[in-house]
Amino acid sequence: MRHILRSQQFDRPFLEWLFRRADDFSAALESASKRRELANTLPGRMLFTLFYEPSTRTRFSFEAAARHLGMQVISTENAREFSSTAKGETLEDTIRVLCGYRPDAICLRHFETGAAERAAAVSTVPVINAGDGTGQHPTQALLDLYTIVRERGRIDGSSVVIGGDLANGRTARSLAYLLGKFEHIEITFVAPPELRVGEDIRAYLDRHGVRFREEEKLFPALAEADVVYWTRIQEERMAAETYEATRNCFTIGPTETSRMRPGAIILHPLPRVNEIAPEVDADPRAAYFRQSANGHPLRMALLEWVLGEPVRDDKPR
Amino acid sequence: MRHILRSQQFDRPFLEWLFRRADDFSAALESASKRRELANTLPGRMLFTLFYEPSTRTRFSFEAAARHLGMQVISTENAREFSSTAKGETLEDTIRVLCGYRPDAICLRHFETGAAERAAAVSTVPVINAGDGTGQHPTQALLDLYTIVRERGRIDGSSVVIGGDLANGRTARSLAYLLGKFEHIEITFVAPPELRVGEDIRAYLDRHGVRFREEEKLFPALAEADVVYWTRIQEERMAAETYEATRNCFTIGPTETSRMRPGAIILHPLPRVNEIAPEVDADPRAAYFRQSANGHPLRMALLEWVLGEPVRDDKPR
Amino acid sequence: MRHILRSQQFDRPFLEWLFRRADDFSAALESASKRRELANTLPGRMLFTLFYEPSTRTRFSFEAAARHLGMQVISTENAREFSSTAKGETLEDTIRVLCGYRPDAICLRHFETGAAERAAAVSTVPVINAGDGTGQHPTQALLDLYTIVRERGRIDGSSVVIGGDLANGRTARSLAYLLGKFEHIEITFVAPPELRVGEDIRAYLDRHGVRFREEEKLFPALAEADVVYWTRIQEERMAAETYEATRNCFTIGPTETSRMRPGAIILHPLPRVNEIAPEVDADPRAAYFRQSANGHPLRMALLEWVLGEPVRDDKPR
Repeated sequence: MRHILRSQQFDRPFLEWLFRRADDFSAALESASKRRELANTLPGRMLFTLFYEPSTRTRFSFEAAARHLGMQVISTENAREFSSTAKGETLEDTIRVLCGYRPDAICLRHFETGAAERAAAVSTVPVINAGDGTGQHPTQALLDLYTIVRERGRIDGSSVVIGGDLANGRTARSLAYLLGKFEHIEITFVAPPELRVGEDIRAYLDRHGVRFREEEKLFPALAEADVVYWTRIQEERMAAETYEATRNCFTIGPTETSRMRPGAIILHPLPRVNEIAPEVDADPRAAYFRQSANGHPLRMALLEWVLGEPVRDDKPR
Repeated sequence: MRHILRSQQFDRPFLEWLFRRADDFSAALESASKRRELANTLPGRMLFTLFYEPSTRTRFSFEAAARHLGMQVISTENAREFSSTAKGETLEDTIRVLCGYRPDAICLRHFETGAAERAAAVSTVPVINAGDGTGQHPTQALLDLYTIVRERGRIDGSSVVIGGDLANGRTARSLAYLLGKFEHIEITFVAPPELRVGEDIRAYLDRHGVRFREEEKLFPALAEADVVYWTRIQEERMAAETYEATRNCFTIGPTETSRMRPGAIILHPLPRVNEIAPEVDADPRAAYFRQSANGHPLRMALLEWVLGEPVRDDKPR
Repeated sequence: MRHILRSQQFDRPFLEWLFRRADDFSAALESASKRRELANTLPGRMLFTLFYEPSTRTRFSFEAAARHLGMQVISTENAREFSSTAKGETLEDTIRVLCGYRPDAICLRHFETGAAERAAAVSTVPVINAGDGTGQHPTQALLDLYTIVRERGRIDGSSVVIGGDLANGRTARSLAYLLGKFEHIEITFVAPPELRVGEDIRAYLDRHGVRFREEEKLFPALAEADVVYWTRIQEERMAAETYEATRNCFTIGPTETSRMRPGAIILHPLPRVNEIAPEVDADPRAAYFRQSANGHPLRMALLEWVLGEPVRDDKPR
């Protein structure tokens, strides 16, 4: 079965196939007639979206992707509070019961790290991890990577700054994992000491021969970056004085963009609060809304793969 | 783009076209075969319903209208609590992100006055205002007007009593605005002093030459009315003694209906609590459930217009 | 109109027709091509699911059944908190309003006993009771019975143990009612004294000539049972010392199954917490997940009947 559980599960040939397929869907969406044809891709197939923690954004993204492919969707956005979980049922029992209603796939968002793997272990249909605790959010990581390809043509040889809360942010972690599959990547992690990237990721990058360094300030790394992947520093995770001292180093505004390369791009998993100033939105290098929109064709490609007939000879996993 | 933001945006020719189109949909819904054809009106088009405050009623109404036209719908009924709004994202960013998932229109219910206009300013697809704060709820106002036409044949020349909480109730306010577009209308506002209609509406009616007066009691205006538009007095908005003193003047029961004209109608935006007695329901002049049902074909007509090809030569807006 | 309100409303010929029809749907779901044809069963028909209390499980079950038949679904999973109920609207008014949006059926879950009957009294479309308070949950009772037929070939002549919280659990009550329509049934109710089955059910069984007895312990009844229907003892409904004293008598584990008949089956309405040990899941007699899955074709058959053309000459009700 074709589960999507961790960003590391995909190899480079699969990613290249996936991004081409997402390009196809992206082009088809531009044409009214082709868009109608898309609805014949997976007609009558049914997706359950089971969200144990709120994420309207991610849920809408999966549902819209599924609907544009002709799938049906049944969803709950607060499974934690309202399902039989409140009565003490295990996730495994919930998944076993839901499989009995004959979905073709289950898209799961859960508050516990490893939940998607546990669900996949008992599920009779593919499980798609839409984020589990501080663990994985593989479709976000894939769309981040896809955005780099769409914006800059290639990933190999990129100098990537990843900044913000690297200790807790799963998107930054997952991206670092995936970048490890490409060549001549240079990563600069920028974070306050409390929020530096975990030892597991550093070991992984060492193992895969990816060059990386760690900084506490955005400059001078910013000036050399091809890709700036920015995330939020959450006030509640830091001592008050540390937060005050560091917050100004973690906001991208006109001063920062003025020192960036002309062909560089700014990414952000969104939502953003203050860490990117609204004035930056008009800068053509501000790619974060395009990045978010890229999730749509990318998730269409993933759903097709998850539910599809054997996909040519790409043999992913 | 064809947003629906304020009830004042529509001129009389558009309203007349709209009501004829709603009549068509209403008739088609009565026939099983025509009803199946309706689903080919907007096949594969996608509506996002984004509700920041609860309104199961309004949400179901839009969703059912969209589905009967063959549209797909993705919805959230508690966007305020569960979306990235909770993390501090602006409405504008949320709309930008949602547009990236390729809906054909966004139906927005929000707790802040002016939210729909703000959303429309950044949206790449039409925005339909399903109520914003104490501001506008234009589709409700349109269905109120449509009900007068269906029940009484015409609006011009009507004597209309609008009663209840006129200071806070957006439905009463929106109706008053729309009535200003018709001729020989006489409005009597009936409200306790604390809840009288706002200066803005009185100025608007003066500007449009609509005759109106204000009363604190239902009689004698009731006996001369063609249309009685009744809304709820909310206890929590008044001093306790005022509420006790006025509540009996703001309940319609058999005594009140016995003094109404034979061809008059009673409207109410619903839900009603005690302000219309259940005994009134059997009176043929009690039109409030028909009024609510009229919202269905009317919203179908609005969705068709919002998403449609240039609609003949009606040139709305 | 074909409402589904109480498990007693169905006679034996109807049940036999229903179970055959569910078998048809179950078989069709196994074939990809037949599954696509299923979507032409009720195309364009619309189900409203209106849940006043949480039950993701039941809601998903109805929605998936409706979608597999080609129906559209509009749903709310927290009608109590978010609908106009919060403003004081009666259930009857809510149903009247919803009927105006032209659903083909309403599936109602409510916290008050008798709510489904009240809804049906004013509804212009069929109402399906998906559980009302401690009253009825007829589709659950039907799927329980259907499971006995599928697992054991017949219901007549069965020795059935029904255990757990029989005072409050509506599933156990509803099953007892339905078993009264079959022949040579022997029921053993197993419950602590505080939670024994109600006088109403005992009187009903007496009236229908069904043999039953009451026990406080699982043994020796377990060893003679063909069907063991197990439900949860809720700690909060008992004195602490009683709970501690009885809980071990109300858990099924390997010791208990070792003394069951080879052809017996264990049923449970789920969710289960501790009352069936996970080790039992691998026992072929553990039928509770198959039971839950049986709800899917059964609810398809019920929806078809509710919405269908006159169904041959079975004349149910």
